[in-house]
Amino acid sequence: MKAVVAPEELEEYFDRLWPILRSITGEGVRRSHDILSEIIPLERIEIPSGTECFDWVVPKEWVVREAYLIDPGGKRILDIAENNLHLVNYSVPFRGVISRRDLDAHLYSRPDLPEAIPYVTSYYEPRWGFCLSHIQRDALPEGDYQVVIDTDLIEGSLTIGEAVLPGETESEVLISTYTCHPSMANNELSGPLVSAFLYRELKSLEKRRFTYRFLFLPETIGSVAYLQLRGGELKKKLLAGYVVTCVGDSGPFNYKKTRHGNHLADRAALHALEVDGRVDAYKVHDFFPDGGSDERQYCSPGFNLPVGSLMRTMYRDYAEYHTSMDDKNFINFNAMSDTIEVYAKIMETLEQSEIWDRVDPRCEPQLSKHGLYPSLGTIDREQVSAMMWVLNYSDGTREIAEIARLSGLSIDQISNAAQQCAKAGLIVPLGHLDREGES
Amino acid sequence: MKAVVAPEELEEYFDRLWPILRSITGEGVRRSHDILSEIIPLERIEIPSGTECFDWVVPKEWVVREAYLIDPGGKRILDIAENNLHLVNYSVPFRGVISRRDLDAHLYSRPDLPEAIPYVTSYYEPRWGFCLSHIQRDALPEGDYQVVIDTDLIEGSLTIGEAVLPGETESEVLISTYTCHPSMANNELSGPLVSAFLYRELKSLEKRRFTYRFLFLPETIGSVAYLQLRGGELKKKLLAGYVVTCVGDSGPFNYKKTRHGNHLADRAALHALEVDGRVDAYKVHDFFPDGGSDERQYCSPGFNLPVGSLMRTMYRDYAEYHTSMDDKNFINFNAMSDTIEVYAKIMETLEQSEIWDRVDPRCEPQLSKHGLYPSLGTIDREQVSAMMWVLNYSDGTREIAEIARLSGLSIDQISNAAQQCAKAGLIVPLGHLDREGES
Amino acid sequence: MKAVVAPEELEEYFDRLWPILRSITGEGVRRSHDILSEIIPLERIEIPSGTECFDWVVPKEWVVREAYLIDPGGKRILDIAENNLHLVNYSVPFRGVISRRDLDAHLYSRPDLPEAIPYVTSYYEPRWGFCLSHIQRDALPEGDYQVVIDTDLIEGSLTIGEAVLPGETESEVLISTYTCHPSMANNELSGPLVSAFLYRELKSLEKRRFTYRFLFLPETIGSVAYLQLRGGELKKKLLAGYVVTCVGDSGPFNYKKTRHGNHLADRAALHALEVDGRVDAYKVHDFFPDGGSDERQYCSPGFNLPVGSLMRTMYRDYAEYHTSMDDKNFINFNAMSDTIEVYAKIMETLEQSEIWDRVDPRCEPQLSKHGLYPSLGTIDREQVSAMMWVLNYSDGTREIAEIARLSGLSIDQISNAAQQCAKAGLIVPLGHLDREGES
Repeated sequence: MKAVVAPEELEEYFDRLWPILRSITGEGVRRSHDILSEIIPLERIEIPSGTECFDWVVPKEWVVREAYLIDPGGKRILDIAENNLHLVNYSVPFRGVISRRDLDAHLYSRPDLPEAIPYVTSYYEPRWGFCLSHIQRDALPEGDYQVVIDTDLIEGSLTIGEAVLPGETESEVLISTYTCHPSMANNELSGPLVSAFLYRELKSLEKRRFTYRFLFLPETIGSVAYLQLRGGELKKKLLAGYVVTCVGDSGPFNYKKTRHGNHLADRAALHALEVDGRVDAYKVHDFFPDGGSDERQYCSPGFNLPVGSLMRTMYRDYAEYHTSMDDKNFINFNAMSDTIEVYAKIMETLEQSEIWDRVDPRCEPQLSKHGLYPSLGTIDREQVSAMMWVLNYSDGTREIAEIARLSGLSIDQISNAAQQCAKAGLIVPLGHLDREGES
Repeated sequence: MKAVVAPEELEEYFDRLWPILRSITGEGVRRSHDILSEIIPLERIEIPSGTECFDWVVPKEWVVREAYLIDPGGKRILDIAENNLHLVNYSVPFRGVISRRDLDAHLYSRPDLPEAIPYVTSYYEPRWGFCLSHIQRDALPEGDYQVVIDTDLIEGSLTIGEAVLPGETESEVLISTYTCHPSMANNELSGPLVSAFLYRELKSLEKRRFTYRFLFLPETIGSVAYLQLRGGELKKKLLAGYVVTCVGDSGPFNYKKTRHGNHLADRAALHALEVDGRVDAYKVHDFFPDGGSDERQYCSPGFNLPVGSLMRTMYRDYAEYHTSMDDKNFINFNAMSDTIEVYAKIMETLEQSEIWDRVDPRCEPQLSKHGLYPSLGTIDREQVSAMMWVLNYSDGTREIAEIARLSGLSIDQISNAAQQCAKAGLIVPLGHLDREGES
Repeated sequence: MKAVVAPEELEEYFDRLWPILRSITGEGVRRSHDILSEIIPLERIEIPSGTECFDWVVPKEWVVREAYLIDPGGKRILDIAENNLHLVNYSVPFRGVISRRDLDAHLYSRPDLPEAIPYVTSYYEPRWGFCLSHIQRDALPEGDYQVVIDTDLIEGSLTIGEAVLPGETESEVLISTYTCHPSMANNELSGPLVSAFLYRELKSLEKRRFTYRFLFLPETIGSVAYLQLRGGELKKKLLAGYVVTCVGDSGPFNYKKTRHGNHLADRAALHALEVDGRVDAYKVHDFFPDGGSDERQYCSPGFNLPVGSLMRTMYRDYAEYHTSMDDKNFINFNAMSDTIEVYAKIMETLEQSEIWDRVDPRCEPQLSKHGLYPSLGTIDREQVSAMMWVLNYSDGTREIAEIARLSGLSIDQISNAAQQCAKAGLIVPLGHLDREGES
């Protein structure tokens, strides 16, 4: 599997998705999913406002028509038509005239980053407000301002997009990303783009051992709602999962481990990073619950799903995070294409990470009898080695990647050897063995 | 909890306890317990002579009235009224005249430490003897010596002093020290003093989660007898325990681990040493059974209780050990006060080391709904982090100290966060959860 | 136990065994066993041709009378009477005249080692061929060659030599070596020689705790056949085992671990290497299934026996391997004698590696009561320490070697202390305890 996604194609979709005002609910999300559905056939799950999900309640759906201020000089400013970060996300409707002084309590800026418009949300507390650069805020004259926030909070629903790519088994790999962020680039248009194109790559495979589940949902409330709906099923089937976020730039990779710490999900990700020629250096982080994204829900102690997260430059590791400065300049479509390939490499590693069982585990089989021993004089030592490793360690406990690690051979070599041994009837996938009375 | 014990107060009690001739049984022990009972209300457990305790038998009670020699010149020497180390502890009664030469077999001195009177005992083999400095021994003239050892071995009892400070739960912390040593300072008046004042500090706490059991007993035979009496109960209830010995001087701390090696008892002690400002350097020792004190009985394989020992300068690490040179000059009451504070810090760590369970462990709770999320603009990041760590790792397996270690935050931060989460009803102490059918 | 095998004696047996043409079956093996039986009483197990052994079938027995070529000049060359490596082992019978060109397909030489005659076998594919130095091959003139290979493949049997040295218990130690190699020295006359003389050393012991099973068999098919016959029994009884191969030279030791990785077999071998004065440096290898000898069968996942292998210069670590250059010059009988002593040291370590149980594990016993405490004044501190370690850690899980490691004392000290404690009735060997209701 060799992912090849043209940077131009990524850019084209980026440009179309960029201007849309997204939030955790609403039409912006649905329009974004519609565009992404050209790449990945997202089925919609609509969860009604007011639905209880564990400790949470799905909020009303946010409808935005327009929002701006008229300054004392009569000029329209902070218009969301210009930059959708100007409005505090989930602002309640408001129309009225307000003094510069009273307005100030509704303004959000970043003195430490005076040119950036910050990204502010207030999903669960009714508020309204405007975000602007600190420079602009300082320059706002005294006088009365006319506020126009033409929004609504209606009984609607929260939208989750889901696509399932079936494989030979029901064991699942989860790819989860989020589509609730308005116009920002690394965090977060990169995640949906990488995820959608990863789907296309996986779909192009002739066969898949595992089933791949892709989720495009609003951060936190979306994964909470999904877990309420299907957490039990996921717990049963999930082999490995990844939250795809902050994957847009060309910075070094960061891998945040699952809460298990040394799960197949982690081993596969680290293996892909190690063997992939595109990766120079990367950092590994133990699971942490304070900060991050939906892995916090997947890895909550009641589920403890094996979900990690492979990123480039992490949330909070860059100053532009959650501001208007996380824009197209911050990201790099060539690097994004590489990231897709690394994710594809993880999936390839997982695909090859079968655990096998010797049909008769006693002694070595006689390779030549099974046509497995190269004839005298043309011995490929590594090929024989790989078979020996497979035959000894296919004991129902070690996956291909682990045998590769033990042997010092590559996953490809071990995987090929396993295929040969399986064809010869010497090993079968774990659980396919019908031994009499063996434990 | 901040222990403040005035060095002067320690010194006052030291001076009163010092001259008493103690042994593993007898009135000296009882008088010492009476004095200590001004600080800690010791209840007496009297175990009759002849009682079988596992492989041991409680010896007869030793009664000492007087003991000395009259030298050939008619001078009274080696009088226990002068120094109670002069008499071999547990000497059988003897009166008679004996030549210098025959006397020699009954004399004990230390050529390597010629000015010190050694401390010698013979609890289980009937003997009599005198201890003296090697210099004095060398100077003893030829001639006949009159021996007066007015002792008795009677059917009496062995005395254990016990005080229990009840807490909210029956889980117990054990503090064990010994009161069988006559006039020596580091080993051992320091242990009873530190233990008694630690009791006072713990008693002053508004509330205690755990029950604290204090034992003042004769070394070895005392702990053996106590384990015979209550070992089973201790095994059920004991959360952590410490043998308090060699805690009188200003040397660096030494922590001898429990036989488990990484028990809560060990983690709490090491945590206290690490975070306490009074501790510059310390050494950690794996459990060893050859040498040491009552932890050898508590940690015998049939009990294997989680009992460690925090010391200053250890038995055998100082030349003055078990001689008259282990006296008031060797110890330091300021340091002893500090040691009490470090022990109090261990107890504080234990008190905070609750293991919690999420009431509903699925996904994160919505903090703002429970009044736990600081309002916009006044976020204390570390406070939120601490709550996130508590909520994710309160899975019934990790105590507060462990979560602190994982998170890199302080025990106080994690403990405070846990208290907040508990108030909000999100977590409950381990075992208080009434989940249906959950394992 | 101190093995003393005179190098001269090793050399004498080497010289007698050297010229015999051995294979995986046949008279050469039986004659070799006859000679070795002067040292070790090998009982023969004959397994008939055609017997199925797991995935294998015992091949027909190979009978060799003579084999050579007559070159175009009428000269007899490549005669097995000169060097038995000249004939491809297991060559089918052939008589005929063949051109130089057609002959070439039946010749085996090593261009990389032009002076060496390679060792080539074809047990399971009917072939005939001759092995020769590359120099000689290049010099073979054009013309017709008369081929004489007077061999037979008959319904016979495969020969295994077995000797069992009984001990006090049925727990077994396995020594396995192979006798299928014709005239080569390090790999492999060294293994049978070292094994045979190790038997003699062990036999000379006054008593043995364990039973020692010695196997002399053809590589691979021999151990496969033996496992078919007695693998289940071995699985039940085997405490530790070693494959003795490549033990003839004076190179540094190499220890290949069991598949368990930290089994008693491994700890005993590493202990012997560490404490033996003859060993300067050694390398340790994790178990590998690609390459090696019969441990590949013993350690196949269906048996997973604790079998390691202590070698000197390993197969494939030397260029002369499997050629005529692995001859008497390559080996060293003084070093071989040392190797026997190191193997004896492993056995000694195993013998001392009893796991003990305290009869009553609660508290320390009163040593003096049992005559174990040295009387006052003559205390041997280390002796008492060793007893304390034994008494605390004889908890049914730790063998003597492990207690020695924990304590920092020698295996001898710990072992002696255990003997004393056992004599006093304080500890009994694991499994000999009849505790009521204890787990």
